[in-house]
Amino acid sequence: MADLKRLSFNQITVNSWTLEQAVAGCVRHGIRSIGLWRNKVDQMGLPIAVQLIRESGLAVSSLCRGGGFPAATPQERQERIEDNLRAIDEAEELGAPLLVLVCGAMTGRDLVGSRQMVRDGIAAIEMHARERGIKLGIEPLHPMYTADRSVIVTLKQAREMASQFQAETVGVLIDVFHVWHDPDLYQEIEKTRGRIFGLHVSDWPVPLPDVLLGRTMMDDGVIELARIRCAVDAAGYEGPIEVEIFNQGIWDQPGDAVIELMKRRFVECV
Amino acid sequence: MADLKRLSFNQITVNSWTLEQAVAGCVRHGIRSIGLWRNKVDQMGLPIAVQLIRESGLAVSSLCRGGGFPAATPQERQERIEDNLRAIDEAEELGAPLLVLVCGAMTGRDLVGSRQMVRDGIAAIEMHARERGIKLGIEPLHPMYTADRSVIVTLKQAREMASQFQAETVGVLIDVFHVWHDPDLYQEIEKTRGRIFGLHVSDWPVPLPDVLLGRTMMDDGVIELARIRCAVDAAGYEGPIEVEIFNQGIWDQPGDAVIELMKRRFVECV
Repeated sequence: MADLKRLSFNQITVNSWTLEQAVAGCVRHGIRSIGLWRNKVDQMGLPIAVQLIRESGLAVSSLCRGGGFPAATPQERQERIEDNLRAIDEAEELGAPLLVLVCGAMTGRDLVGSRQMVRDGIAAIEMHARERGIKLGIEPLHPMYTADRSVIVTLKQAREMASQFQAETVGVLIDVFHVWHDPDLYQEIEKTRGRIFGLHVSDWPVPLPDVLLGRTMMDDGVIELARIRCAVDAAGYEGPIEVEIFNQGIWDQPGDAVIELMKRRFVECV
Repeated sequence: MADLKRLSFNQITVNSWTLEQAVAGCVRHGIRSIGLWRNKVDQMGLPIAVQLIRESGLAVSSLCRGGGFPAATPQERQERIEDNLRAIDEAEELGAPLLVLVCGAMTGRDLVGSRQMVRDGIAAIEMHARERGIKLGIEPLHPMYTADRSVIVTLKQAREMASQFQAETVGVLIDVFHVWHDPDLYQEIEKTRGRIFGLHVSDWPVPLPDVLLGRTMMDDGVIELARIRCAVDAAGYEGPIEVEIFNQGIWDQPGDAVIELMKRRFVECV
């Protein structure tokens, strides 16, 4: 079973909490690491957020999120790139070693072209990330999000995309919800050795109640969590494991109850 | 654009129609081929359905569906196999050259084991299919159906599964809704040359309103239909192209209006 020391609380899991509440919740429950969201940081303002995090003693596992590269016009694409450059700066200030890239929706019906825009977008921000010491984690999303969230939808595709860039800066973030079904999962995890920058866990309930907010708490679904986590570890990953859950039913529950359950399930199932 | 002569009406597209109404609808609208569903055949009774089809002069492009191989106990798995053997016999009687295999849901959390049960199931029915002259088309379903409908979820996986059997009997059915997102789609279509037994078209709307009944009419979504159809043709497929749509909104419309729209969109977009 996974070491509780590796648990990181991705703050979207208790979406009702502000960043201040999320930090206090982590401290209260003995969680040492947090995954931050830019919109939550923005609500508080970056300088105050930086101070809050520093004073809490929490480690930051990642900042969500950059990406969103495909767009219809060159001007829009440039705006997206500039936003990613700002996200890198924010990650550095917050002490987040990793910026998660949700690479972006398809533009029009041009899937091949949209994927090229992702490649071009990463190329445009890689140098800045390296200079700031921020890693970029390409997160393959589930294929059901191809049209409206990410044209990068398999671990193989993310790995091949990352391999076009320097290994210390561009890698892959593995979220079990997005890749558990992949017939080539275990061989792909092994092939991603040296490029695995993060691991997210949650679970896939049956039936899936909703395309966007369907994922659930570990052990309330069918994913072989420990098997995947062990495979990721065996491929050399030793970093934090974030629990990231988008689920209205969980969001409606009191945050402290969610955290307690998350800790228990993490130890029992991950 | 695709030749209207290749259009086959998969009867689920107008789910409110009985088999008798579906056959009459095809004849009325000059459609030469139909894809049948076993539940619709059962409602009428096989002998009457056979006679109806014969008298209509329609070609049958496929029978939906066999598969469903994974199950918790050996007895259940044997029952599934026996049902597939019956489906093969029904296909022969109906003049359907192809039985579509929706390979079945995961049993428990054992994805690898479930996939092995699919392989074993196909092995148990292959000889019977060959003797009856029926092709078996492994249909990779979208990965969002892995847990509850099919553990076969990529074209590569379906192709590799089929390649363990004789090429004249076991191949792949490509449904654009299930595979359009695949980063390896076009190379996989080419690799499936000689094993492509069928092609289904529909479209992926944005956002997808429902996991099960979300797919829509051609051109009302984002799939590059003509591009995929041309790639399938270029890989040597010359057979019928079935329109298969699960969509409550379309099911609620009058069948004749759906058929008219389907024909027009087929010519314009496929």
